[in-house]
Amino acid sequence: MDTIPILRMGHFLLVTIQVDMHDRLAMRLQDDLTERVVKDRAKGVLIDISALEMVDSFIGRMLGNIAAMTQVLGAETVVTGMRPAVAITIVELGLSQLNILTALNVDKGLAMLTSRLEIPAEVNNHEPHQK
Amino acid sequence: MDTIPILRMGHFLLVTIQVDMHDRLAMRLQDDLTERVVKDRAKGVLIDISALEMVDSFIGRMLGNIAAMTQVLGAETVVTGMRPAVAITIVELGLSQLNILTALNVDKGLAMLTSRLEIPAEVNNHEPHQK
Repeated sequence: MDTIPILRMGHFLLVTIQVDMHDRLAMRLQDDLTERVVKDRAKGVLIDISALEMVDSFIGRMLGNIAAMTQVLGAETVVTGMRPAVAITIVELGLSQLNILTALNVDKGLAMLTSRLEIPAEVNNHEPHQK
Repeated sequence: MDTIPILRMGHFLLVTIQVDMHDRLAMRLQDDLTERVVKDRAKGVLIDISALEMVDSFIGRMLGNIAAMTQVLGAETVVTGMRPAVAITIVELGLSQLNILTALNVDKGLAMLTSRLEIPAEVNNHEPHQK
């Protein structure tokens, strides 16, 4: 098994990271995820890392890259389920400047994405996006 | 990493199986899942097996067991993302009699659970469940 499944849930995509990430798997995930964001016209991506007991600078950068890539494609990324030890490492490694949105768990991540995006039931007139 | 994360999404729990299941991991998943169904008062469980390229009788029985256990606890289990080859194996192994609900993907699984359970906003009078 050399792919991480990407699950679609309405407007969002969910990825649960359960295995140790090596270079090839991380690259594959980036490729698959960006492809799926476009294909499924996803508005948000949830990456659950509750299974990860620790995070190194490689994974930290990967998360930052994914967040940046999906943002370019018009989707917000939220990292959920971060353990306290992981949060400490993230700050110590200086990765907290990566501008990654986080939430306590998937439930709260979903709520965050929904409220941030304020997805309307139907959009007829596309107004310019206010920054 | 010797646990499979269980993600809560509203009334439901989601499990994505990505790694080869051995005995101990399967037992652990059963234990964790039944515990979480009770703790979170979950109404449904989604088990995504889209990462599994094949299923043996051990995994088939495990899925059947989990479905039976959660049902006893008042939650429906839906297995999602089954690959065609897995579906063939399931039937050939005679596991299709296990009475496991299935859906094409997590999105459809969520819709199935929501419609089957018809979760009311508030329940004041408990009528006897009609079979």
